[in-house]
Amino acid sequence: MPETELVRRLFAADRLAVAKAISSVENQDERHLDLLNSIQSRLGNAYRVGITGPPGAGKSTLVSKLAKSLNDTGSRVGIIAVDPTSPFTGGALLGDRVRMMELSSRAGIFVRSMATRGSLGGLSKTTQLAADVLDAAGYDFVFLETVGVGQSELDIVEAADTTIVVLTPESGDSVQAMKAGLMEIADLFVLNKADRPGVDQSYNAILTMLQISGGEIGRHADADSWTPFVVKTVASEGRGIDEVSKAVDKHRRYLTDTHKLILKRRDRARRIVLDIVEENLQKKFWTEERLSKLEDRLELVLTNKLSAIQLAEELTKD
Amino acid sequence: MPETELVRRLFAADRLAVAKAISSVENQDERHLDLLNSIQSRLGNAYRVGITGPPGAGKSTLVSKLAKSLNDTGSRVGIIAVDPTSPFTGGALLGDRVRMMELSSRAGIFVRSMATRGSLGGLSKTTQLAADVLDAAGYDFVFLETVGVGQSELDIVEAADTTIVVLTPESGDSVQAMKAGLMEIADLFVLNKADRPGVDQSYNAILTMLQISGGEIGRHADADSWTPFVVKTVASEGRGIDEVSKAVDKHRRYLTDTHKLILKRRDRARRIVLDIVEENLQKKFWTEERLSKLEDRLELVLTNKLSAIQLAEELTKD
Repeated sequence: MPETELVRRLFAADRLAVAKAISSVENQDERHLDLLNSIQSRLGNAYRVGITGPPGAGKSTLVSKLAKSLNDTGSRVGIIAVDPTSPFTGGALLGDRVRMMELSSRAGIFVRSMATRGSLGGLSKTTQLAADVLDAAGYDFVFLETVGVGQSELDIVEAADTTIVVLTPESGDSVQAMKAGLMEIADLFVLNKADRPGVDQSYNAILTMLQISGGEIGRHADADSWTPFVVKTVASEGRGIDEVSKAVDKHRRYLTDTHKLILKRRDRARRIVLDIVEENLQKKFWTEERLSKLEDRLELVLTNKLSAIQLAEELTKD
Repeated sequence: MPETELVRRLFAADRLAVAKAISSVENQDERHLDLLNSIQSRLGNAYRVGITGPPGAGKSTLVSKLAKSLNDTGSRVGIIAVDPTSPFTGGALLGDRVRMMELSSRAGIFVRSMATRGSLGGLSKTTQLAADVLDAAGYDFVFLETVGVGQSELDIVEAADTTIVVLTPESGDSVQAMKAGLMEIADLFVLNKADRPGVDQSYNAILTMLQISGGEIGRHADADSWTPFVVKTVASEGRGIDEVSKAVDKHRRYLTDTHKLILKRRDRARRIVLDIVEENLQKKFWTEERLSKLEDRLELVLTNKLSAIQLAEELTKD
């Protein structure tokens, strides 16, 4: 369909148009720039929630239940599930995705799965722009879900308004998460599979870590500060889902009241502009002439007469 | 120590100088460019082996045993172990690293651990340049080891001369690996923990996948083609280590005989030049004036009067 027709239908929340528009952004096809410019006027209403955690923590189940629950009370929910590059993310992944896609049968829920390997442009940029499409189509919430592996995957959830880190009582997840600095990105911890042994221990471990890091990084230093909640859930049985919704809502109100939401969105917009500037600079720079100069001079690098750094300097000096 | 002294000692394989030089590259300190230019004349002798696979596959153990074995026969071995961003890579990681660091007590083995989170510049670039330092210091082999999660982690091992993918008979690793395209990057599969149940099944699964993909992607289309080996090991007991060494050697001879080694190295050099050009372009572009224009105009993006793309175009048009 022509672009104006696509945009018109997208604003009317036509599912096919939403799917086509996201594909356009994902593949960076010839109309994606016009499309993104056209939807700009409609952005800013969707609330974005990032969800990450280890393989098998139950992220997809949690997202599904949250989406249904929000949809039951009248909200429209978009979900972008990012499948990581890695093959090693647990065998249940495919099954989870299939179950999640079933949600799409609901009129008010849209689910999109994205692969990270070989994504054009930055992964974080692509997912944020796909979230923009859902925003423009009038979805009230956009969930961005990805397994917590690799910097680019973490960038996705960090760019959300509220970031949820999902852990389980098993395998020392909580301690590992703390060590790796997930502490700084989590606005909310969900301790899923809370019917399993060791839940109290994990719960207390997270609280202790929060207190320690609170002391260190000054979370409690001013009245404007936010201390992450820890919510216990058994997502597969729907237990604790309302509490998670309420905690997200609380964080949202906190961000709004302290005017931090606008700062978050400014950061997100800035990052996208920086990404696109980078792409533009590359495109402009690599003329046929420079590409062939690069190939010529690479010989000198391979024969150790020139370093890669010197060649790069030579190419960029004018 | 002054740079000329550092370089002199580096060429003499002084361990402290090697460590300092890698830190310089990792932190991009003020002398790292001069340093990299100075070592260019000594590059190209080290053979680079990338090793990846799922958490718990025994990569560190395999690398340790390979390094010892090569060192026993007179080779000097450098190891760069890249710890991924993710916290979810198995609890044994730390113990493995400690054991690996013990290798450093051998005069002919140098071990360096690098963290991925927050690395300056591209991770792949940094590790390749650290490998250059080891190359210049006269190490015969450089192992680049990282868990197979995330695109940037895979980029590291793909840039090696020979890439080894380590799998185990457990948890359907082999099938997952095939699905995710590790097929294309592996020159050699190591099926570790081959004393565990299911090893024959996994072995056959890998072979079948190799045949299927061979048919599909034309690996057997010409006499110059390489079909990845599958080697069974029990690395913890040292079983199969010699076979892995021999397979690496075979692949090395294949690359040399078919003149593909020089092509690989050309690709690697090209990628590093591209990365540095990108950095240079960014540095040159973001003047104070442009940064403040970005901040000013971001207001318009947040109020939906301008899209991120339009702002990026505006900034890059002249």
